[in-house]
Amino acid sequence: MKKFVLTLTLLMILSASLLYAGTEDGAGSQTFYPAGSQKSFKGPLDFFTGDVQVDMLFPSNETAHYSGAYVTFQPGARTAWHYHPVGQHMIVTDGVALTGTRDGKIVTFKKGETVWCPPDIDHWHGATPDAPMTHLVITGTKDGRNVIWKEKVTDEQYLGK
Amino acid sequence: MKKFVLTLTLLMILSASLLYAGTEDGAGSQTFYPAGSQKSFKGPLDFFTGDVQVDMLFPSNETAHYSGAYVTFQPGARTAWHYHPVGQHMIVTDGVALTGTRDGKIVTFKKGETVWCPPDIDHWHGATPDAPMTHLVITGTKDGRNVIWKEKVTDEQYLGK
Repeated sequence: MKKFVLTLTLLMILSASLLYAGTEDGAGSQTFYPAGSQKSFKGPLDFFTGDVQVDMLFPSNETAHYSGAYVTFQPGARTAWHYHPVGQHMIVTDGVALTGTRDGKIVTFKKGETVWCPPDIDHWHGATPDAPMTHLVITGTKDGRNVIWKEKVTDEQYLGK
Repeated sequence: MKKFVLTLTLLMILSASLLYAGTEDGAGSQTFYPAGSQKSFKGPLDFFTGDVQVDMLFPSNETAHYSGAYVTFQPGARTAWHYHPVGQHMIVTDGVALTGTRDGKIVTFKKGETVWCPPDIDHWHGATPDAPMTHLVITGTKDGRNVIWKEKVTDEQYLGK
């Protein structure tokens, strides 16, 4: 019995030290997404107007329920109307961006500025008519979905007429 | 009674149409974070080695439990050891970045590349010894905390010696 208790105690100490090593020392690996490892594609014509390039940066994972991508719009290019079930952050990294909502409001924002679109709000985003724009989008994912597409944005809606 | 049922029916139709307007039409406002509206500060010497500039982009909100910031490191500059309770994405936007873990592994990643650091993993990140680096960090927040700081990274750890 004494031997059993001693063995049990040693096992408990060993378990505790292993647990300690796993949290306090923080040993473990990070995930690296190298250039060319994520999908790059042209924005499909059903969902975009004009020339749009999508370069994925990282996928959502079991902890972080959002993905990241660069999206580059040539002058005049924009998304169709759509909404995000768990919202989206848009951070302009080059140029000037436009984003519109159904109430007719259009926000103009530039490099280093961010717009947050809450869940289930119809919006569109794109470049200005005369210059290209790149933004980094962080898009929430729920049940494997991050966007619901609708109809194209007309020239009148895009130009705020 | 007939009048009551009619009123109730009309109220139900009205409620349904309002509900429809709120989701399908997606009217509603986005949140704009203009330049200069978010905090910018030098990385405190207790938590960083060398010259580090932090420019917040957007705060976490009730839907998206993460914040965004640009962090720029001059040559040789790096964070102290720390971990993030709900992880962090680091996207290099300029230059070449280094990030290390307790197992001695150092990942080198460049503009357009991302590293994900899972929750509760000790890591550091910074510039290479000879060039500045900027990365955009997306950091998860839980119970108002997004980072736990530890000791400084020695030159030996930084240089992988």
